[in-house]
Amino acid sequence: VAGAVSNEYQGWLHAFCPEGNMKDRAEELLRRAATTRGLISLAGGLPDARLFPRRALGKAFLTALEVRGTAALQYGWPEGLRDVREHVADRLRRRGANVAPERIIITSGAQQAILLSLATLGKCGSVGVDAETYPGALAAFRSCGARPVELGERADAYYVMPAIGNPRGLPMPERSKTALLERLGRERTYAIEDDAYEATAFSGASPRPLLADLPERVFHVGTFSKTLCPGLRIGWLVPPVRLAARALKRKQTHDLEANGLAQALLAEYLAGDDFDRRLARARRRYQGKAELLCSSVRRHLPSFRFDVPRGGFSLWLESDLRLNELELLSAAVNEGVSFDLGSTFKVTPSEGLSLRLCFSAAASADLEPAVARLARALRRVTRRAA
Amino acid sequence: VAGAVSNEYQGWLHAFCPEGNMKDRAEELLRRAATTRGLISLAGGLPDARLFPRRALGKAFLTALEVRGTAALQYGWPEGLRDVREHVADRLRRRGANVAPERIIITSGAQQAILLSLATLGKCGSVGVDAETYPGALAAFRSCGARPVELGERADAYYVMPAIGNPRGLPMPERSKTALLERLGRERTYAIEDDAYEATAFSGASPRPLLADLPERVFHVGTFSKTLCPGLRIGWLVPPVRLAARALKRKQTHDLEANGLAQALLAEYLAGDDFDRRLARARRRYQGKAELLCSSVRRHLPSFRFDVPRGGFSLWLESDLRLNELELLSAAVNEGVSFDLGSTFKVTPSEGLSLRLCFSAAASADLEPAVARLARALRRVTRRAA
Repeated sequence: VAGAVSNEYQGWLHAFCPEGNMKDRAEELLRRAATTRGLISLAGGLPDARLFPRRALGKAFLTALEVRGTAALQYGWPEGLRDVREHVADRLRRRGANVAPERIIITSGAQQAILLSLATLGKCGSVGVDAETYPGALAAFRSCGARPVELGERADAYYVMPAIGNPRGLPMPERSKTALLERLGRERTYAIEDDAYEATAFSGASPRPLLADLPERVFHVGTFSKTLCPGLRIGWLVPPVRLAARALKRKQTHDLEANGLAQALLAEYLAGDDFDRRLARARRRYQGKAELLCSSVRRHLPSFRFDVPRGGFSLWLESDLRLNELELLSAAVNEGVSFDLGSTFKVTPSEGLSLRLCFSAAASADLEPAVARLARALRRVTRRAA
Repeated sequence: VAGAVSNEYQGWLHAFCPEGNMKDRAEELLRRAATTRGLISLAGGLPDARLFPRRALGKAFLTALEVRGTAALQYGWPEGLRDVREHVADRLRRRGANVAPERIIITSGAQQAILLSLATLGKCGSVGVDAETYPGALAAFRSCGARPVELGERADAYYVMPAIGNPRGLPMPERSKTALLERLGRERTYAIEDDAYEATAFSGASPRPLLADLPERVFHVGTFSKTLCPGLRIGWLVPPVRLAARALKRKQTHDLEANGLAQALLAEYLAGDDFDRRLARARRRYQGKAELLCSSVRRHLPSFRFDVPRGGFSLWLESDLRLNELELLSAAVNEGVSFDLGSTFKVTPSEGLSLRLCFSAAASADLEPAVARLARALRRVTRRAA
């Protein structure tokens, strides 16, 4: 129970609270959820902590201190540890992107890599994104003074998740990818390719990244947060060659370098463990939970539409219900469940209620009861509204 | 030897290479220095790796995994771990600043805390700084579009190191502190108080921070990089209460949170080790090395002026010599020694040659030979120039 409570709080903060009037109310709910015993969190996009290889990581840390000595604790290179960059390069090479390790910058998570991409581009009036997308990216763009607009519109830069999108858990259609690549070449603009969920595709297929086809127009972003554990705060950025020096300078200005301790540990972990086998096991676990959540939603929340995800950590639910999402969340917390507010993912507000439900972090046995609680909360709010 | 070589490279990068034409030349020297066997680095402001408590940190990590379980590896709170914030609050309280742990944001090092301070303030045309100051701060201000100007001038914000300054290793005079506090109140402007070197003051005295006197006008910045080890990348920011929510939002947008692994490890380390005794030992070590470097400079480089430092990691050398600093560095690397280019610390260029020599990272026995090498390099360049 303590775990669920603590995850709820974290999940909420990671959902990037809405701005303005809604903010105070959302934060009040956050505090309430954090202290609600037995609450099941379907919020936050957290990986399943049961999959963290604690023993292997502990061993890797001691090996790192032993083998690497004080280098693991001293200042390091702004671009990151060679061993980690080589691992990332190998993985990208297997997917068709021939990237030299020298081109890769290790970042403090994917969030920083996204922000650095836009900071490297400099003045951007607008960024084209999917109609629903990662709230952290929206916050990063807005903090740089760039307005997120929907992908259909012409923009100064683009942000996409071609392999597996968040919140829908679906790959970008091939023709959309082709259209985007043509557009980048034609408009001489840049795209940020957020590959955070790539390795979670249930099929195990690792698609060819945009980076492979148009390396001079793509900022490629990845992370170990969804596949290994977020506490490392290790992600990466592959900037276009022409902007590499500027991106590295930005990285140094932001926080000198990613933490050397986690990098050293990661390098030893990757050398000593079968990471690919671990990924395969994680995919099976997540796919099983996704199926459970889908069937629970079909049973208990029939008024919501969703696509069956092909990867990722969540289901994106849409409806024609005209309900206040904070009212629903408040009722849900009372029933002992939480979810991510749909509005925080959206570029353009819509009238129908939408929400994100994560199947990733909760225990399998908790998924059906969680959805049943949410359905009860929905009935309460609907009755009140009627 | 391998250690020295690797430190040299890192030190260089941390010196924030000069911009423009000098950049390529400086980077070429960097590469050369990195592959020069037996080179003694007096560059970079690195702590002495011999002081890192490797065993205690290894133990703390295993305890963290044991006691905190998967929470150490999961996403965490954007403001950081409660235990670490409490340690920082305790230390500040002992120095006269009554700060609730809730007000402290754990950051990815002091560099990020400096950048976040300026980002939180929003548009700043100019930042008043000491005539010589930390190059990473200058880079951060410039990346936000703010022009560094000397403290005497009126500016939109100020950046100071009241406890122990970098590069001079001296505290800010009391009357300058008083004048600055008056000015902040009068102009209704803000100061960033960089306290990174506070705990290195040789006397062991922990001065009252600006934060204690004018909490509503001060962004207080600290770090474990100079006292424990930089590889953790753990620093902190105490923003003014009025701007706290905005600062936290910025922190989240920058990289979600400081790495949880290092925070959990740090919390266990601080609970299990006598950190104050370790600090006292480190101060004695650094003071001894500072004295050695001072006497070596007096003997071998009599044409340079410097103040005897009262803390910090370095000596700031000034002269009337009209020599190209890159020429000197090139000759120095040939002789097997390196230093930090004075120009990277300066707001206003000056004609006389200046440089920063760090006594912190090199072995005590290497300090005198290093200065002798530098003196040989200086003779070569002077002869060439004549």
